[in-house]
Amino acid sequence: MTAKVKLGITSPMAVYTEVSDNELAEFLRAFDLGEPLGFKGIAEGVENSNFFLQTERGSFILTLYEKRVRREDLPFFLSLLEHLSKKGIACSLPVRARDGEMWRELNGRPAAIMTFLPGLSPRRPDAAQCAEAGAALARLHLAGADFAMSRPNTLSIDGWKALAKQCDAKANSVKMGLGAFVAAELNTLQAHWPSGLPQGVIHADMFPDNVFFVEGKLSGIIDFYFACNDALAYDVAVCLNAWCFESDGSFNITKGRALLTAYRAIRPFTPNEVAALPWLARGAALRFLLTRLYDWINRDDSALVKPKDPIEYMTKLRFHQLANGAASYGWPA
Amino acid sequence: MTAKVKLGITSPMAVYTEVSDNELAEFLRAFDLGEPLGFKGIAEGVENSNFFLQTERGSFILTLYEKRVRREDLPFFLSLLEHLSKKGIACSLPVRARDGEMWRELNGRPAAIMTFLPGLSPRRPDAAQCAEAGAALARLHLAGADFAMSRPNTLSIDGWKALAKQCDAKANSVKMGLGAFVAAELNTLQAHWPSGLPQGVIHADMFPDNVFFVEGKLSGIIDFYFACNDALAYDVAVCLNAWCFESDGSFNITKGRALLTAYRAIRPFTPNEVAALPWLARGAALRFLLTRLYDWINRDDSALVKPKDPIEYMTKLRFHQLANGAASYGWPA
Repeated sequence: MTAKVKLGITSPMAVYTEVSDNELAEFLRAFDLGEPLGFKGIAEGVENSNFFLQTERGSFILTLYEKRVRREDLPFFLSLLEHLSKKGIACSLPVRARDGEMWRELNGRPAAIMTFLPGLSPRRPDAAQCAEAGAALARLHLAGADFAMSRPNTLSIDGWKALAKQCDAKANSVKMGLGAFVAAELNTLQAHWPSGLPQGVIHADMFPDNVFFVEGKLSGIIDFYFACNDALAYDVAVCLNAWCFESDGSFNITKGRALLTAYRAIRPFTPNEVAALPWLARGAALRFLLTRLYDWINRDDSALVKPKDPIEYMTKLRFHQLANGAASYGWPA
Repeated sequence: MTAKVKLGITSPMAVYTEVSDNELAEFLRAFDLGEPLGFKGIAEGVENSNFFLQTERGSFILTLYEKRVRREDLPFFLSLLEHLSKKGIACSLPVRARDGEMWRELNGRPAAIMTFLPGLSPRRPDAAQCAEAGAALARLHLAGADFAMSRPNTLSIDGWKALAKQCDAKANSVKMGLGAFVAAELNTLQAHWPSGLPQGVIHADMFPDNVFFVEGKLSGIIDFYFACNDALAYDVAVCLNAWCFESDGSFNITKGRALLTAYRAIRPFTPNEVAALPWLARGAALRFLLTRLYDWINRDDSALVKPKDPIEYMTKLRFHQLANGAASYGWPA
């Protein structure tokens, strides 16, 4: 009898597509991984179906790509992981099938087997973990410099405009005045969005739940399915938003300084990147405000996935609007 | 953006209680398991929250007991696992904390760490797997014979009556005539329910999804949270219901014979157990019909857990009503 238990649900993430023992056995025949010894759906991630897979060869993650990840983007995502992994970045490595392919069909979806990364994601990262994240992001940017493929950032200004348009009619029902707030911010960013910054491959979604730690040291980065080519400093701005605010909405400048100091020790900022930082932080906050707002408006109350609060990013965006240059983020003098 | 993905949800099981990295670290300090190296919520089971846990000492399952498992029953369940494990039954073994306790509090819930069992559950068990299940069940019954604790079966006739009463007003809205069908069956079973059968510790819920296999051999049995003392042959009847029907509702007598033959090769049936088998099968079918009906009637459409179809067990019960002795289940002549 489950009825009473349901009230306690706090972690609404789950598996979208089931895979039976026979379907898995058939799929694994294409790989050189031996017999399956364990297979469990992971209640993690809201976009794909992930399974923890143990075989005679070790531990892996089996990912089934659900609708959000476009099939035509998989060569970019999976080749990038292989490229970064070869350069020593602690990301999962796609296991190639016997025929050399990095993914195959499983239950009508593209599916890949990834190496298992050890570590736990921090719920509330401390300053030392922010520094680890900053350093890892800089290393990731350097390692991606000679990656041959490219993918545009579909969630930059043009994508925000499209999302804002789709959310406009209902934005005020989420919070009075939100529609006008978003429209005004979009106009301002359109006029001031930095150009000419150093470009490269960015993760674009390096939130704490996509980063693993073992004994305080960063042990892995996952979920590269927003990776694309864009300004490297924009990726830093995403991390400032994701790592350096407290749960009450305040910015923790000690954490910001830790992240920025560790980053620039590995990849120095150019002067125009330093100047652009508040604009990039505003843009990054608007990006997550808009995707969360879209999910909120289009949520299905009977569905598994409870959307994240968009207003959290309205609060962060307001902080960025008042920023007084990179110093507001702890940029070292 | 998750909205479109939700339509594809087919596996509505998830984690009810979240555990942060810091909460886990604090909890693990009470155990001698070393540092955590991996921690992922498992989308499995509808009653408890389960996490796959890797530490320096190996792989484990961390279970948080949600409301259905009563705190006062934990000594029975966990001591039983320890008892059976010592006797060589492939079930998970609770890892004792440094202070010797088998469970501790975590986020306001009792929580235990279990050893990890290898294997995969069969979606559609074949006759060979039914035989493995029958043999394992018989071994489990023998191994439980000298277990010192006991727990009554709260889901036997008295429990069915209570459930039927709670479902009565709405049973016909699920299927016309279901209320009268249940009432008549309850009356008949009350009059004919077998007594004087060999008793012992039974699993009481050994469905295929609670049994693991590696390369065709049974490798583990999980989820002992309905275990109790009752007629051993009733446990066999539960398995006949759970393992030997096809998805179209037909009974597969080859699978039934495989299960029964393997069972009695290890623990012979008494003549009154053979005679009682159809009644026990009816009772077992009614038990799952009623708990599923209760969950169906009390379901919360906005919740994670999609209840299982109660009518599947009405169909099975009708088969048992027409059974012509144990031979109808493939009991070997």
